[in-house]
Amino acid sequence: MLLSLLLLLLAPLCVTSAQDEARKPGHVSVIILGGTGDLARKYLWQGFFELYANQVNSGHSFFFYGGGLSPTNKSTPVLFEILKAVDCPKDVSEERCAILKEQFLRLSRYRQLKTLEDYQDLSKSIQKQLQQEDMVEAGRLFYLSVPAFAYAEIADRINNTCRPSTGAWLRVVLEKPFGHDFQSAQVLATQLGNSLKDEEMYRIDHYLGKQVVANILQFRMENKKHLDPIWNKYYMERVEIVLKETLDVKGRIAFYDQYGVIRDVLQNHLTEVMTLLTMRLPLNLSNSREVLTNKLNIFTSLLPLSKSQAVIGQYQAYQSEVQHELNKTKDHVSLTPTFAAVLAHVDEAQYEDVPILMVSGKQLDERVGYARVLFKDNVFCLQKQNSVHCKPKQIIFYFGHGNLDYPAILVSKNLFKPVVVDSEWKEVTEHKDKDITVLGLPISDYYVQTPIVQKEAYTELIGHIFAGRKNSFVSTENLLASWDFWSPLLSGITAIFPRVYPGGSENQDMLDIAVKGRDLSYINDVILINPDQMGGQSVNSFQVMQGKFRGDEMVSGWTEELIEKLASDIEEAAEKAVLESGVFHLAVSGGASPLALFHRLALHHFSFPWKDTHVWMVDERCVPLTELESNFHSLHDHLLQHVKIPYYNIHPMPVQLNQRLCVEEDRGTWLYEEEIRKCVNASSFHFVLLGVGYDGHIASLFPGVKPEDHGENMVVLTESPVKPHQRMSLTFNAINKAQKVAVLIIGKYKHEAVIQLSRVKDETAQWPVTWVKPEKGSLVWYMDYEALLG
Amino acid sequence: MLLSLLLLLLAPLCVTSAQDEARKPGHVSVIILGGTGDLARKYLWQGFFELYANQVNSGHSFFFYGGGLSPTNKSTPVLFEILKAVDCPKDVSEERCAILKEQFLRLSRYRQLKTLEDYQDLSKSIQKQLQQEDMVEAGRLFYLSVPAFAYAEIADRINNTCRPSTGAWLRVVLEKPFGHDFQSAQVLATQLGNSLKDEEMYRIDHYLGKQVVANILQFRMENKKHLDPIWNKYYMERVEIVLKETLDVKGRIAFYDQYGVIRDVLQNHLTEVMTLLTMRLPLNLSNSREVLTNKLNIFTSLLPLSKSQAVIGQYQAYQSEVQHELNKTKDHVSLTPTFAAVLAHVDEAQYEDVPILMVSGKQLDERVGYARVLFKDNVFCLQKQNSVHCKPKQIIFYFGHGNLDYPAILVSKNLFKPVVVDSEWKEVTEHKDKDITVLGLPISDYYVQTPIVQKEAYTELIGHIFAGRKNSFVSTENLLASWDFWSPLLSGITAIFPRVYPGGSENQDMLDIAVKGRDLSYINDVILINPDQMGGQSVNSFQVMQGKFRGDEMVSGWTEELIEKLASDIEEAAEKAVLESGVFHLAVSGGASPLALFHRLALHHFSFPWKDTHVWMVDERCVPLTELESNFHSLHDHLLQHVKIPYYNIHPMPVQLNQRLCVEEDRGTWLYEEEIRKCVNASSFHFVLLGVGYDGHIASLFPGVKPEDHGENMVVLTESPVKPHQRMSLTFNAINKAQKVAVLIIGKYKHEAVIQLSRVKDETAQWPVTWVKPEKGSLVWYMDYEALLG
Repeated sequence: MLLSLLLLLLAPLCVTSAQDEARKPGHVSVIILGGTGDLARKYLWQGFFELYANQVNSGHSFFFYGGGLSPTNKSTPVLFEILKAVDCPKDVSEERCAILKEQFLRLSRYRQLKTLEDYQDLSKSIQKQLQQEDMVEAGRLFYLSVPAFAYAEIADRINNTCRPSTGAWLRVVLEKPFGHDFQSAQVLATQLGNSLKDEEMYRIDHYLGKQVVANILQFRMENKKHLDPIWNKYYMERVEIVLKETLDVKGRIAFYDQYGVIRDVLQNHLTEVMTLLTMRLPLNLSNSREVLTNKLNIFTSLLPLSKSQAVIGQYQAYQSEVQHELNKTKDHVSLTPTFAAVLAHVDEAQYEDVPILMVSGKQLDERVGYARVLFKDNVFCLQKQNSVHCKPKQIIFYFGHGNLDYPAILVSKNLFKPVVVDSEWKEVTEHKDKDITVLGLPISDYYVQTPIVQKEAYTELIGHIFAGRKNSFVSTENLLASWDFWSPLLSGITAIFPRVYPGGSENQDMLDIAVKGRDLSYINDVILINPDQMGGQSVNSFQVMQGKFRGDEMVSGWTEELIEKLASDIEEAAEKAVLESGVFHLAVSGGASPLALFHRLALHHFSFPWKDTHVWMVDERCVPLTELESNFHSLHDHLLQHVKIPYYNIHPMPVQLNQRLCVEEDRGTWLYEEEIRKCVNASSFHFVLLGVGYDGHIASLFPGVKPEDHGENMVVLTESPVKPHQRMSLTFNAINKAQKVAVLIIGKYKHEAVIQLSRVKDETAQWPVTWVKPEKGSLVWYMDYEALLG
Repeated sequence: MLLSLLLLLLAPLCVTSAQDEARKPGHVSVIILGGTGDLARKYLWQGFFELYANQVNSGHSFFFYGGGLSPTNKSTPVLFEILKAVDCPKDVSEERCAILKEQFLRLSRYRQLKTLEDYQDLSKSIQKQLQQEDMVEAGRLFYLSVPAFAYAEIADRINNTCRPSTGAWLRVVLEKPFGHDFQSAQVLATQLGNSLKDEEMYRIDHYLGKQVVANILQFRMENKKHLDPIWNKYYMERVEIVLKETLDVKGRIAFYDQYGVIRDVLQNHLTEVMTLLTMRLPLNLSNSREVLTNKLNIFTSLLPLSKSQAVIGQYQAYQSEVQHELNKTKDHVSLTPTFAAVLAHVDEAQYEDVPILMVSGKQLDERVGYARVLFKDNVFCLQKQNSVHCKPKQIIFYFGHGNLDYPAILVSKNLFKPVVVDSEWKEVTEHKDKDITVLGLPISDYYVQTPIVQKEAYTELIGHIFAGRKNSFVSTENLLASWDFWSPLLSGITAIFPRVYPGGSENQDMLDIAVKGRDLSYINDVILINPDQMGGQSVNSFQVMQGKFRGDEMVSGWTEELIEKLASDIEEAAEKAVLESGVFHLAVSGGASPLALFHRLALHHFSFPWKDTHVWMVDERCVPLTELESNFHSLHDHLLQHVKIPYYNIHPMPVQLNQRLCVEEDRGTWLYEEEIRKCVNASSFHFVLLGVGYDGHIASLFPGVKPEDHGENMVVLTESPVKPHQRMSLTFNAINKAQKVAVLIIGKYKHEAVIQLSRVKDETAQWPVTWVKPEKGSLVWYMDYEALLG
């Protein structure tokens, strides 16, 4: 929901014609903050040197600044050590390279950038130089290779002191992490947004610079003819996006322990790959706006993740590494996962129920990264099982490492022969090691294509920054959409113990996982020797507990278990009703509490007898059904659209009649009452689902109301103390005819109401829920621990 | 549709307490018609002898008659030759068997049963014997092992002359074929129904007597705990039901050439197995009524078959066998398939999109029969790909023959260990040939169970007839439902050339097939050397052709191709509209013509942008939407329920308001018009689909009407000359605002109207369709060849 709001609120993507601007020659100032840090040393200066080498004849002039907090005299030699070590680009002769390198060194400086004055000085110095040499400014490129907490302040300083002259561009490059969850990412985005325009920000995900990843869309586009018929649920068995690492995180614990593998790898790298594999192809690949919009659309189509779609692990040595690096005692326990597998689904007809697995971990048996689209075994071989076409079919985007050891795109020969259009790619027909096997098939079973020259991701991306290709970067909207997708899972697993694995090849099959319907689990159950350490079990995974509340049955548990219990109880009631009478009548309330229930029912109870179920509304707001705040709308979005229920079985309240809302003369209440009488035996619903407001209201029956106010009516118009004021609601009379009434109360904000409710008498006018007393049926309270215990 | 009518019309299954009756001891007369024929010789007498051996101490007495058309003196010795050759049951000692056999011979007679008098005599003789020996009659069992054309007359004679005395049962056993298609099966069922009650008929499908087939439901029931979670679309990759034969049909061509493999094997044996695998489990396996009802429900859930879901073949020698046995010349061509593979789908949430393959053929490389449930590869093996749980998972119901050579149920060990509850079954733990492979996996990878004693299917079924177990037989409803399912395919392929295959192992991979979405095709394309003989291509598969009709564009083709063209055109219009304006407004007519189109759209165009499509009605009958004859109802059943379209995008006409139908004051037309104005830009639908009546009417605008009758109105109430008279309809005004109007005309019954239409002028009052002239849009006629050419 946050996401849809976001989509409405955010302005259209600001990508304008940055690409064109890059072509106007002029002077460019490059400032790398953290210019003597690890990343700069390893990748950035190399990338900028190659940029310089490429652009030296383009008419642009350059000046490079390494920025940092240390004084100039201390860091200058360090910087020059780094600069001297850059490699020559492969396509440049040694002689020419020596000249270029000398020029590059001459154009580079270290500057201390600590105080506001330092930034002002930098800007003045750039301006002075421009004047002295009578140059037109093309733009300024700030590369922030510094801890994320410093972003806001630096951006603010750049904005206040370092903006280039009119007509020139400003580009500020940011490195992850871009926040820790949706909220922190949003805060950071807002802070940055105060200083920088969206088109000025370049958020780097270096995966987007990997040659194979960067080529996914083009591959899909160029092989569209072959892919279109098979790129859907009828052909795709599953998608796997995998990054296995052999390293541990020793030395980086202070950072890593706060993030873990999901934030470190899945939320960004693997998610980016996933969107590239599933997004609708743009008409024009170089239209950044279209690419980013199509990517964003995938996020709106992702089914929400719950903890049952993830498994997590932690390598054995991690605990002691944490204790050591964070100076913790021996009883300190970190739940940070170093391994995770997550099962996502894109809720579009094309990909319905196609499992998308994202897997990554430290200390695994090998280092390898790939995305694999595995196709279904759709061939029936009548006689010889070993024909080529009887073999498995897959497309692999092989990012690198592993036993292939070079980046490549591999297509099973029994699928199709892919086109190699990009002049920077070539087909591989001879294999050094002919016996090599890639993901289950010998290399000779694939068509293989690979880049002619392997390039560093950062070098690629630095070129894209300079060219203003925004589609190789993470836009604010996409970033927030990704966090919106991941955050619920991240908060859902905070209290779960990761399965501990020994590390390396000793992991054996401990981390093998199975897709079970919409859920994911480890294949092998581990016996809980030490429940504090093993098994991927939640600390809090008690069973739901049964008790009494206000004299009626009560079920309580942690939210997720409680919701599942309620969903199962509804399914059971439905099956019983259908068996007995061929039909099940369910009436549901609006509000936020039932949303998780709706999802659970829609996505996990696939044998629910929807065909024979009628869905009724307990209450409705007097707004058109198509509006977001309509109760029916959220029921539709979270439940009805996911299940196969006949149109006739859906009974929205007729709040809109004759093109107007809840007008007494239109007799909406009478119509709904008649509909109930006609369809529902004795007007007795099989199951009524209620929530309770802070003020004790149920349905749209607010404090002060009494059953006798509504006489024999089953449906009435009411007034809510909060907007929208007008409501339509079932009456106590209608509710109390039901065979089963469930009251669902969730969240600690309801705890106060629960306490009050435990004390007040039946039939207290100020607490409408106390009038719910099914005449012949039963009332059950479903409360999560937070509502019950605070 | 026929099926749903059937369900409504037919009385509840009459299976009463036949099982109990069987337990009242008394005298039983068994009459085998065709008693000296092949089937009787091979299986029936053996079965009845075993029945006798089992029942001899039960208190029942027996008399057996072999009946036939030949005179008694000629056939008596033949019969006794057969009887003397019956084998002893395995559980009876040789001595005892000799005694039983002597008794059995003594109780058996041949009788000529040719004329009505012969039947009267038989009945008299039975009665006389009953009187002489002072016996109570328990029942009479007639086994009709005669050609099907004789059934009706024999049943009539039995009914008129041979009914047993009051209180005793009559059972008449019938052998397939039970008709040739839906119509002939219905005629036969009606004829038989005139003479026999449903509970008196026992239609044999000997597959239901095969021990493994007979055990499917029990296996599913007893392993419910393990199967419930995996017996659904999330786990099942596909289901295969296969009967491969090595024999040809030499000597039986006169029969076979009229039937072919689909009628001979798929419609009955393989379909029965399919229902047993997919039907809802009954609460009580021995409740015949429940079993048969649940079976029947599967038929109502099967998606309709079209020829794109089948491939057919014919072994090479077949043509000359036909020419020889049927005395045909060398240019005679038979299109009868001797091989077929068919792809079915059960349209229930549980099995959605699970391919169900039925495959059978003569002259294949091996003789084997099995049903295999192949499960998805749902395991992600992080490290070792060869662990047990990384292997394929399947359950095989192995009927017999093939390399296993004994009937068995096999379950992959990485699935679960199945229960063996039936005392007549045992687990196999030692394998004679340890290296044997069953459907891709070594035998040691399976849990295997097999019957302790192998029994003939006929012997089993004869026991069930005697016990009155109707669930082992084909009920009238199930038979008709099966024909209702198969007939459209059978008539769809009459003009298709089967792919010719050489026979035996030389077939190589010629008959390998691929599931492509919802369609089935041969893997290997065959180059058409002789288009009369090869390639599985339709004789009639011309492309659709384009032309002009009444000055507007016309598209014509064979029905199926035409429908696909129209479906593609609608999809194209939808994609264009969504791209341009974010929404697509489609208005559709009622009637029979669009149903095939709706199916095509629902089941083959899965990337249709339904999310952004609004569906409107061109016209509606004034009946509740939930009634079968409502236009909306058929739109819902054939299209809407199969696609993911938001509730708000569905716009049924408001024919029912204030609990009454099409009353002017309720202003339904005004409401619909307002809805159009509000949602549809300039009230101009993107696409309007019309049909044309014999009388030239479109929508519900009947001859005599003129645009000016409706002024500026877009929606009006009209009167139809046929029932139901009251209608709601769009006006010419509304239709002519559309951007594209398609008029679909299908079937030769429309040919006369097409001829008339080609002659009349525009704006002829008697031909409403002549007023359709989109103001700014275009009109396209879609006519199949039958409508166009008669």
